Amino acid sequence: MKLDDLDPARLRQRLSAKWQHYGEGVLPAWVAEMDFPIAPAIRAVLERAIEHDDFGYPAYEYERLVPEAFAERMRARYGWNAEADRVVVLSDVVQGIYLCLLAFSARGDGVVIQTPIYPPFLFSARDTERRAITCPLVDDGQRHVIDFERLRAESDGARVLLLCHPHNPTGRVWARAELEALAALAIERDWLVLSDEIHADLTHPGATFVPFAALGPEVAARTITFSSASKAFNIAGLRCAVAHFGSQDLQTRFERHLPAHVRGGIGILSQHAMTAAWREGDAWLNEVKTLLDRQRRRLLERVQHELPEVRLRLPEATYLAWLDLSALRLSPTPAEFLRRRAQVALSDGAAFGAGFGQCARLNFATSPALLDEILDRVVRAVRAG
Amino acid sequence: MKLDDLDPARLRQRLSAKWQHYGEGVLPAWVAEMDFPIAPAIRAVLERAIEHDDFGYPAYEYERLVPEAFAERMRARYGWNAEADRVVVLSDVVQGIYLCLLAFSARGDGVVIQTPIYPPFLFSARDTERRAITCPLVDDGQRHVIDFERLRAESDGARVLLLCHPHNPTGRVWARAELEALAALAIERDWLVLSDEIHADLTHPGATFVPFAALGPEVAARTITFSSASKAFNIAGLRCAVAHFGSQDLQTRFERHLPAHVRGGIGILSQHAMTAAWREGDAWLNEVKTLLDRQRRRLLERVQHELPEVRLRLPEATYLAWLDLSALRLSPTPAEFLRRRAQVALSDGAAFGAGFGQCARLNFATSPALLDEILDRVVRAVRAG
Repeated sequence: MKLDDLDPARLRQRLSAKWQHYGEGVLPAWVAEMDFPIAPAIRAVLERAIEHDDFGYPAYEYERLVPEAFAERMRARYGWNAEADRVVVLSDVVQGIYLCLLAFSARGDGVVIQTPIYPPFLFSARDTERRAITCPLVDDGQRHVIDFERLRAESDGARVLLLCHPHNPTGRVWARAELEALAALAIERDWLVLSDEIHADLTHPGATFVPFAALGPEVAARTITFSSASKAFNIAGLRCAVAHFGSQDLQTRFERHLPAHVRGGIGILSQHAMTAAWREGDAWLNEVKTLLDRQRRRLLERVQHELPEVRLRLPEATYLAWLDLSALRLSPTPAEFLRRRAQVALSDGAAFGAGFGQCARLNFATSPALLDEILDRVVRAVRAG
Repeated sequence: MKLDDLDPARLRQRLSAKWQHYGEGVLPAWVAEMDFPIAPAIRAVLERAIEHDDFGYPAYEYERLVPEAFAERMRARYGWNAEADRVVVLSDVVQGIYLCLLAFSARGDGVVIQTPIYPPFLFSARDTERRAITCPLVDDGQRHVIDFERLRAESDGARVLLLCHPHNPTGRVWARAELEALAALAIERDWLVLSDEIHADLTHPGATFVPFAALGPEVAARTITFSSASKAFNIAGLRCAVAHFGSQDLQTRFERHLPAHVRGGIGILSQHAMTAAWREGDAWLNEVKTLLDRQRRRLLERVQHELPEVRLRLPEATYLAWLDLSALRLSPTPAEFLRRRAQVALSDGAAFGAGFGQCARLNFATSPALLDEILDRVVRAVRAG
């Protein structure tokens, strides 16, 4: 596998969103796709399917593969006793969030969302007619932290905490103490916690990922955890995810709310690819993470030296970096300015919550050369004004 | 492509349901999967994805591919002016049926279902707490027909007609006159018609498929049509289907009922594979249909000569045959008897509606040699008693 020698002309031939959405001249660093070759274990699943013309109905005999692979992985990597029996396989995490908001809250109920945030969190509250209670994270000079005072003050009427852990877009891996404080509040206020842990496997050295439901049985009983191999293994387009219910009661309520067929079936390749990723993909993942760790440091170093006006904290997880470009006063917005003037596509901060229009998210899951080219372009455009 | 020389030892290596569910010794002729190699156009999509490590988010730029390919195909093959703008892409037809029952009817409303029927039709009424009004088809000595008198008499309180066209499991392609009579009744009784037309492309010589919504604007305005390449092109495991709404009003009501994300995302391979099947797969499909036409005749001939007690009508579409084995008095049921004594797995008639326990569905989408082996085993077991 050559992670660090990628040809943009070849990447542009991909049909997926990242390299398709913008024109030829633009370097894309927006949507959460990585530019690297796929894990050999996933490739093997797909090649085997082609070899055997194997695209029929997923067999009942394999329907426990994904739940078991998830539970095993959680135990092995995070010491969390997730249970295969408490897993429901879904198409994607966002589907799970929508379904759980519908199943466990009512129109007008408050949903706590910590901004800036992965935009579908905000859409999920809007589309289900729940009330988004947005609590902005604060930068304490070192990293983004939760403003617990504000969270306590402003979360009246909340029924659900939509937790993003690790946090997209800031890259925070919530520390045990922060999670425990959140859990205490959730118990005190009787919140259901929907914890999106899709980036867990992309936690970098120096941070320790603790699954929210692993904090204890009382916490687990009010937690639904979402995960997928889609982010760490770069298979978002294969559509497979899991919801883990912290209690039988939660699972039963979920399953009774809407018939399972409403969710659509899970693809045969999706199911086997995700299982292969989780069970046999870690050599590949370790290589990718080694490179991503280097890339996040390279990014921070270059921003600190060449764009000191830009505020960036080292992401503790993910391949996404959250840039506050306010001080540069780029017009009309930093993302739009950079797309036009630097020919670099970042994700526009405005989508991540009110008040973030001067921020942007940068995807650094590409080769060192392409990341440098992206940063060269950004620095040149900013300096040219 | 070698359609007529298939190796069961290789087929058993497939991970999909058909060859996995029963033991080594059993020849499977149950679930709707075909044993043939996949269409080259679909294979090319998958190989290209592997070549480019292309498993990210489906690009917005391609989201109209499936709707447009569907509308083009309906116009070209059936002279139906389906509109791409009226198409919603789904994971599977069953998902669409469930969602439409929820969106367009209320708990306790009657749903007309013509039995014997593809079992998920029955599950959909049960799971959504609608009232199934089952109207058995009758055998007029030539084929299965609709008992309109009974349908009129017993459909009080119906809100929805769940139409299966072509009909699974009998293989009937409803004739224009039958469809018009159904449409007149639907208009008279103000029924919504959910028309599952997934087998349309598998209509055999001698029958003409007319899409229900093509009967006219008044009919279209109360019709939601479901389709997919999954049956004709044997990609059920890739999960992609369409719902076509006969009016903007129906589509708007559908889209308002539940947020789109509840349905889950559509896979990138699914979308491109289905488009390729519909746009470039017809040479392959024609070859498959030529073989299936031969197989249905071979099956009928052998049954008539060697199992004259079994009632079978030549399927006008599909690769499924509906056998009434009542006269053989096989115990405990024909399907169970044949699985044990003939080592052949058919679909048990009991799942297709009340009163069909002495029937079974046979899937003949395999090689001539394997179909003969299946029939040899059935005949031997029946004759041995």
